[in-house]
Amino acid sequence: MKARLFCWMIAMAGTALTPVLAPVAQAEDGYDLWLRYPPADQARAPVLAAHATAIVAAGTSPTLTIATQELQRGIAGMTGTTPAMSATVQQGALLLATPASTPALPVKTDGLGAEGYAIRSATVDGKAVTIIAANSDVGLLHGTYHWLRLAQSGTSLDKLDIRSAPKIGLRLLNHWDNLNGTVERGYSGQSIWDWWRLPDWKGPRYSDYARANASIGINGTVLNNVNAKADSLTAPYIEKASALADIFRPYGIKVYLSVKWTAPMELDGLKTADPLDPQVAAWWKAKADEIYKAIPDFGGFLVKANSEGQPGPQDYNRTHADGANMLAAAVKPHGGIVMWRAFVYAHDNPDDRAKQAYTDFKPLDGKFADNVIVQVKNGAIDFQPREPFHPLFGAMPKTPLMMEFQITKEYLGQSTHLTYLGPLFEETLDADTYAKGKGSTVAKVIDGSLEGHKLTGIAGVANIGVDRDWSGSIFNQADWYAFGRLAWDTSLSAETIAKEWAEMTFSPDQKVVQPVVKMMMGSREAAVDYMTPLGLAHVMDTGHHYGPGPWVSDLARPEWNPVYYHKADANGIGFDRTKSGSDAVGQYAAPVAKLLANAKTTPERDLLWFHHVPWDYRLKSGDNLWDGLVHSYDRGVTYVADMQTTWTSLKPYVDAERFAETEAFLTIQHREAQWWRDASIAYFQSVSKRPLPAGSAEPAHDLNWYKALKFPYAPGHN
Amino acid sequence: MKARLFCWMIAMAGTALTPVLAPVAQAEDGYDLWLRYPPADQARAPVLAAHATAIVAAGTSPTLTIATQELQRGIAGMTGTTPAMSATVQQGALLLATPASTPALPVKTDGLGAEGYAIRSATVDGKAVTIIAANSDVGLLHGTYHWLRLAQSGTSLDKLDIRSAPKIGLRLLNHWDNLNGTVERGYSGQSIWDWWRLPDWKGPRYSDYARANASIGINGTVLNNVNAKADSLTAPYIEKASALADIFRPYGIKVYLSVKWTAPMELDGLKTADPLDPQVAAWWKAKADEIYKAIPDFGGFLVKANSEGQPGPQDYNRTHADGANMLAAAVKPHGGIVMWRAFVYAHDNPDDRAKQAYTDFKPLDGKFADNVIVQVKNGAIDFQPREPFHPLFGAMPKTPLMMEFQITKEYLGQSTHLTYLGPLFEETLDADTYAKGKGSTVAKVIDGSLEGHKLTGIAGVANIGVDRDWSGSIFNQADWYAFGRLAWDTSLSAETIAKEWAEMTFSPDQKVVQPVVKMMMGSREAAVDYMTPLGLAHVMDTGHHYGPGPWVSDLARPEWNPVYYHKADANGIGFDRTKSGSDAVGQYAAPVAKLLANAKTTPERDLLWFHHVPWDYRLKSGDNLWDGLVHSYDRGVTYVADMQTTWTSLKPYVDAERFAETEAFLTIQHREAQWWRDASIAYFQSVSKRPLPAGSAEPAHDLNWYKALKFPYAPGHN
Repeated sequence: MKARLFCWMIAMAGTALTPVLAPVAQAEDGYDLWLRYPPADQARAPVLAAHATAIVAAGTSPTLTIATQELQRGIAGMTGTTPAMSATVQQGALLLATPASTPALPVKTDGLGAEGYAIRSATVDGKAVTIIAANSDVGLLHGTYHWLRLAQSGTSLDKLDIRSAPKIGLRLLNHWDNLNGTVERGYSGQSIWDWWRLPDWKGPRYSDYARANASIGINGTVLNNVNAKADSLTAPYIEKASALADIFRPYGIKVYLSVKWTAPMELDGLKTADPLDPQVAAWWKAKADEIYKAIPDFGGFLVKANSEGQPGPQDYNRTHADGANMLAAAVKPHGGIVMWRAFVYAHDNPDDRAKQAYTDFKPLDGKFADNVIVQVKNGAIDFQPREPFHPLFGAMPKTPLMMEFQITKEYLGQSTHLTYLGPLFEETLDADTYAKGKGSTVAKVIDGSLEGHKLTGIAGVANIGVDRDWSGSIFNQADWYAFGRLAWDTSLSAETIAKEWAEMTFSPDQKVVQPVVKMMMGSREAAVDYMTPLGLAHVMDTGHHYGPGPWVSDLARPEWNPVYYHKADANGIGFDRTKSGSDAVGQYAAPVAKLLANAKTTPERDLLWFHHVPWDYRLKSGDNLWDGLVHSYDRGVTYVADMQTTWTSLKPYVDAERFAETEAFLTIQHREAQWWRDASIAYFQSVSKRPLPAGSAEPAHDLNWYKALKFPYAPGHN
Repeated sequence: MKARLFCWMIAMAGTALTPVLAPVAQAEDGYDLWLRYPPADQARAPVLAAHATAIVAAGTSPTLTIATQELQRGIAGMTGTTPAMSATVQQGALLLATPASTPALPVKTDGLGAEGYAIRSATVDGKAVTIIAANSDVGLLHGTYHWLRLAQSGTSLDKLDIRSAPKIGLRLLNHWDNLNGTVERGYSGQSIWDWWRLPDWKGPRYSDYARANASIGINGTVLNNVNAKADSLTAPYIEKASALADIFRPYGIKVYLSVKWTAPMELDGLKTADPLDPQVAAWWKAKADEIYKAIPDFGGFLVKANSEGQPGPQDYNRTHADGANMLAAAVKPHGGIVMWRAFVYAHDNPDDRAKQAYTDFKPLDGKFADNVIVQVKNGAIDFQPREPFHPLFGAMPKTPLMMEFQITKEYLGQSTHLTYLGPLFEETLDADTYAKGKGSTVAKVIDGSLEGHKLTGIAGVANIGVDRDWSGSIFNQADWYAFGRLAWDTSLSAETIAKEWAEMTFSPDQKVVQPVVKMMMGSREAAVDYMTPLGLAHVMDTGHHYGPGPWVSDLARPEWNPVYYHKADANGIGFDRTKSGSDAVGQYAAPVAKLLANAKTTPERDLLWFHHVPWDYRLKSGDNLWDGLVHSYDRGVTYVADMQTTWTSLKPYVDAERFAETEAFLTIQHREAQWWRDASIAYFQSVSKRPLPAGSAEPAHDLNWYKALKFPYAPGHN
């Protein structure tokens, strides 16, 4: 991120006045994310300066240097004064200390692990200081970012007594970035990995990426698409990955790679990719050795196999476990791990798509090597605006499972719609699997505490690209931020996180923060309302997934068609997943299955996910289902209009460029929410043959008009 | 471009000293191009301030506002003081004036046309001022940029008496940008046109694009690839183009579009695209009317037809003139023009590719409507590192011809090689066609003075993309800059332009400028030396055009193969274009043809373009051709190494980020120059069977090693 020169009034006795300075203000383009460190106001600046008079940090590691430079950058930005490094403790100093660097460290670091930190206001040698303590320099770095967050937010910096350590071990971004620079389901421009000019040129963006991630505790990144190319494992690409790993290492971030199952055949002409073939195992062992020679702390592999056309062990009549274990053996001597995705649904399996991953994986429980973790999407279909939690969570007690969330908004408005995902993440993490009775939350499954796993993880499909604002829009940055914060601490609330983010991204002034947080908190639900209300799912148009296509019924595979998911007809709508239908419900623990067995005890927000109900079905609101559906769409569109009103009111408080971008995107979002609503109603009305409830407007066009819309240039696709 | 807050010491009697400011310096990432306005040094800043105490500019047009804001931005950047707008003349003020705004304007604006300007130091009301005068506000804007260039360069601002007006009317960029965001032969990231989010969101980049172009006098831009999609002419895309046109208009920049010949059939189901069909003509008339309704000053169309698979009038047995004239009639009522490209070579024509454009177009001389201009590439093949000037220049006296240069470096090292194109442009413009005797330069053909044309033009295929530095590298920006400056004034020297650019882009300090200019001035010739010495051409590898492929002989069309161009065999090398060969030489005016008829009177740099000569042929240096060829390669590689040495010596004077980028790219360039040399020598040696001259090293690898290199992810291609 760019540091800036700041105007600072300095007094010099006796010098003549120079002409009045009329500064041209720094335009904000979003590049600085939540690490802007803008000048604090008149009241706050001296407080910050007084709590950061100097920095005491014994040691010269790259990580420690990064931490102290970040403190200097932040404090200089906020106060105009750069705190000097000091060898001795001073009044108001910041002390960064580990037990190794500082004998008799007055702050205990037990329980902080390798990445956690404590922040304590203390008196040392009679001087009031702030101690950031940790077991490692990476822990100090994390503590530094926490302190800077407090500094930016307006929180008191006195009497601090903070201890924070992550429970989840692997906190990763997954980049679906291709070697040709495109990003699958990416809406933020091309891939940030400039493979063509790596490793010779390492642009400044890489270290800014590392800073941003370190500031939210992300500690690993899978560089390449799960739909992998074998080329990623060739020597030139290993060298390029190594260059990135070198940049990320001092930030506490490891590098991982997605692998293509058939790499041994493609790269070295082996005749098979059977995991039990000794030659294949030897190839992977040699490949792992080669990678670790270049990247000694390489994290390991992510695998998409036997899914959506990707090759895998099942092509050789082996199981997922056979495949994973063979790879695991290759990386184990180096301390590496294998993340094996459970996102599977077979091309020739007529069973409910929502059931297939569980059906394939549950029998493999306990069969994976101890350095394998199975990566499970938050829900059983594919990142819909709302999905009930994946039935695998809690169902594989002997196997570590990690979460896969999608930060990039493939189904939630892509780059332009403001749909803060904090509530979506939170909803899944807080869901109760009842696997071991009440309180068996998904969070406890993935943090290992429910079932006693040490290998734990959470991954987010990144929304990052070369767009100047990184994530396609300013508000999309909040989703990246929220993912990181929840990965660090699943007990945080989405609202708290939104407040943190807004304070740093816009202003600590509550008259800005409150309306922004309010907009954000309801925005995901608004998208559910205008796209997929009441438990509907997978009603988007083909390929680009941009815009509504609930009518689509002509794709080759039944479970590619929206009609498969909503099953709307003259009588009703929804997918019967109870015993009278696919019995996907039976894959949940008994207390959950029991509730879901009955429409009346199913949460209404999941109603049509689990039940096929008549249009007359009476909702809690008193509406029948049809009217309730239409009202949901209306409510979603209205919410966006309300966001526009709120945002307009914030114009005096937000810099012009970022204001204008969000304003333009809200305009797009409102138009498109209306389109989702109108097209969906036009279609469902053609099926339900019901009149619209009073007060709901007719769609602007007829159904054929919506069906005819084509988007050959939609981004993120092909 | 970002304006910055600058620290400014202000005196306030009696105030206590605040802690010492340790500013964090502004990192430079290339975004500000040559419009950086960095703080001037201690000696210069007061001089600038004294010559810009205030700005007097009567009027409130958007253009005038842009000009005055640019002055304020520039002067604030360089001096720390923003000059105020003033209604009255002050000592040291800048006056912007047109005859319309300022009765009794003391500077005459005759002969300045609609875009030119004068800059004169004068005394008005007893006060020393600088007057920028023009016939229009756009002229004032151009004058403003000139003054700011002087300000940045360290030139005296006293006794100014400048008059400048462009001779060439159309000074255009051609973007080969596709609607899906890719850029054909683009190496600077994706297209800057964010079609997906236009017209709702107009990012800040568009106005910065306009500023950069206005600063070098570019007055038009063709938004879309000559390999056009009909979609560009549909209503949504016209609306998006209109949004861009609105942004560009006050900068004096018009918008143009490339058209696909078959648009009437694709968009509205017409059965033919025969230009003589009344329905087709009516379709284009209506389309033009539609475009002009949205964009009243739309420039017109650019057409690639019957070339490389693009459809065109010849598909209907009509001529290029038939096609051009039909389109011309459609835009003429609106003041529009048609640019019809002469880049043609037929798939089934066995004649020398270098002859075909002349053969097709010369018979059409005088047959084009008066608002048609034929666009001709600088040379007869395709933008090679060196090409003799195109034989059409001077050969179509009754037809306006415009130049097409390639700024993006498809064949000159793409994003990373430093190969300043000013000398390439200059070489072509200064070439003497002898069409009307000595002095019939290409420049005089295209500025209309040789043959008396009013419609005149020059186009550059843009090297612009979303890369932060716009052009893929810092030094690539110089090629964009040089194109603009030569378009404005073909009499400028490439060296003068390089000096201007270096002063603004790096520093006005001659100890920086001189080495930088020296590096730049020999760099294109170095690329010729290591890629295509002595008149060789088209020896690059297939498709991506990245890297050497002189051996390639397996492509479907003969004239796609490098072997077609060099025709190397055991006896010699080169393409006989004399009477004993293809007689392409005969297409030049007699004095030129006479010189080229004989190898001994052919400039040695074009030797193998025009002649097939034996390996023993004695060059002027005394070398035989084979040894001379090898020495050329060696010389090119050495030049790059020398650039590395020079650049390293400049490290103290260049900001870290831009220094590092150029350093890394020079590393790549040296490695690749060596590769070009080694691969070319390995191949040509396998044909010539000659030993290398003493002192020239053997290639690092054998020929098969070079042949096996594959680049599936090379940018800019597909």
